[in-house]
Amino acid sequence: MPFTGRKVRDFTKGHPALALNTASLGHNLDGAGAGWSPERVIDACAARGYGGIVFWRREIGTRAVGIGNRVRAAGMQVAGLCRTPFLVGREAPATDDEARASIDMAAGLGAPVLTIVTGGTEPGTKGVAETQKRLADRVARLAPYAAERGVALALEPLNPMFGGNRTCLFTVADALAMAEAVGAPNVGIAVDVYHVWWDRTLAGSLAAAKGRVLGYHLCDWLENTRHMLLDRGMMGDGVADLRAIRQAVEEGATYDGFCEVEIFSARDWWTRDPAEVLDVIAGRFRQFC
Amino acid sequence: MPFTGRKVRDFTKGHPALALNTASLGHNLDGAGAGWSPERVIDACAARGYGGIVFWRREIGTRAVGIGNRVRAAGMQVAGLCRTPFLVGREAPATDDEARASIDMAAGLGAPVLTIVTGGTEPGTKGVAETQKRLADRVARLAPYAAERGVALALEPLNPMFGGNRTCLFTVADALAMAEAVGAPNVGIAVDVYHVWWDRTLAGSLAAAKGRVLGYHLCDWLENTRHMLLDRGMMGDGVADLRAIRQAVEEGATYDGFCEVEIFSARDWWTRDPAEVLDVIAGRFRQFC
Repeated sequence: MPFTGRKVRDFTKGHPALALNTASLGHNLDGAGAGWSPERVIDACAARGYGGIVFWRREIGTRAVGIGNRVRAAGMQVAGLCRTPFLVGREAPATDDEARASIDMAAGLGAPVLTIVTGGTEPGTKGVAETQKRLADRVARLAPYAAERGVALALEPLNPMFGGNRTCLFTVADALAMAEAVGAPNVGIAVDVYHVWWDRTLAGSLAAAKGRVLGYHLCDWLENTRHMLLDRGMMGDGVADLRAIRQAVEEGATYDGFCEVEIFSARDWWTRDPAEVLDVIAGRFRQFC
Repeated sequence: MPFTGRKVRDFTKGHPALALNTASLGHNLDGAGAGWSPERVIDACAARGYGGIVFWRREIGTRAVGIGNRVRAAGMQVAGLCRTPFLVGREAPATDDEARASIDMAAGLGAPVLTIVTGGTEPGTKGVAETQKRLADRVARLAPYAAERGVALALEPLNPMFGGNRTCLFTVADALAMAEAVGAPNVGIAVDVYHVWWDRTLAGSLAAAKGRVLGYHLCDWLENTRHMLLDRGMMGDGVADLRAIRQAVEEGATYDGFCEVEIFSARDWWTRDPAEVLDVIAGRFRQFC
């Protein structure tokens, strides 16, 4: 039986395909946006014609239903929730209860998609093969719980520099193979240009992922990236071929959801006024994406 | 006509398959090994039964022939030279004269292999496709010059975190495709576990690279890698599946050259006495590789 998720895109206003990932405003460090409440972010996005917002768990607490309703009352959609706790690896892998709690939060928000960043190599193992097997088991166990709540799970491959402690999925092909190994109708993949821009086989992998892409994340890869985690570029400032990637995502993989802008940028965008950042994102999205 | 390179491995002593890449002793920062001359490194490696040494251009200057002879007089081989200047990308790509000078140095040393780190995305372009085309042209132009001097060129793919400013080749499959596009008998690839350990398709790519692998570089990928360039681990301290990778290199790709230990480690191994580092490398090589 096919999984029927929520409709995630509304073409009635300014930038209907554009979603803000709240990380772009510096939510989790002492950046300029650290003091903005979810409500303030919602109002600012609505005022600029954004189509959706993706939140992080730490911003939501116990207010999922209220925040989700507020987003929809403002004419937007909750495009997704970041993210499950790590499911494998040494760094405190989540219990099933903790993982289910993140699914509950997505359901409360009315988010169609919950992103999975897998976690790294399992203690006592080498490479990624054994870790991938254990991940498949865990995701398969969580998938029905999510499906009952209308939530799809998006396996996100990360740039190989995050191997070891953050991920065991490195390419779209890796994530697709994992989704197919799990075999649940509500398990797919997320595609983030920061992680996959370099991959010569990307277009082919995305064509093979037809119907399986549940999220598309935008930023740019800076030519001189200075920090693995917190030095992402604004669209147009880097070397990623953003138009080609979007075409492969939308035409190859038939993705028709949001383009979600997610920019971790401790030295630049997180130091700026969030209102300015939101304006620049909207402009760059039109110009470069 | 097949390219006939120099014999690179001698099975008559302690660790005949083991080569030191001098970078492991902290040659290029103010680490403990910074003061060691090539002669001191040669004597220390010979005393421990290493089979070969790989030097960096900055250590050689105009003394290539003398240093090469000294290595051989000590019963070892010059296993290779690091490396051509960047051939593409924004950061001062080398002139053909500069690139040929690095080939001359390898020939002077009697090094069978010169490694190519390509350089990053060409100015005014996006992604990697156009850059790869230009790289193929440049390598094709250099290959005959190198062949006449008995030098093979090894295209080294780098971890995707080095896209943008350091490389346009990210996987063994990328490097092999480039070598095949160039089509010269003395152009092959180098395989470094730091860059490729995460790749689920590695064994298949290496089987396809039969006879094309010209160098195998060892270290380990630390679970919590803190710095992109200078935080490599000693074999056994990380999560790379070293035995499986060596098997794929030697059985799949039929490589029978040195295992070259190349550890950039500003916070750990470069702060230690080089004599200790050489001892540990030899022990870990036996134990984990």
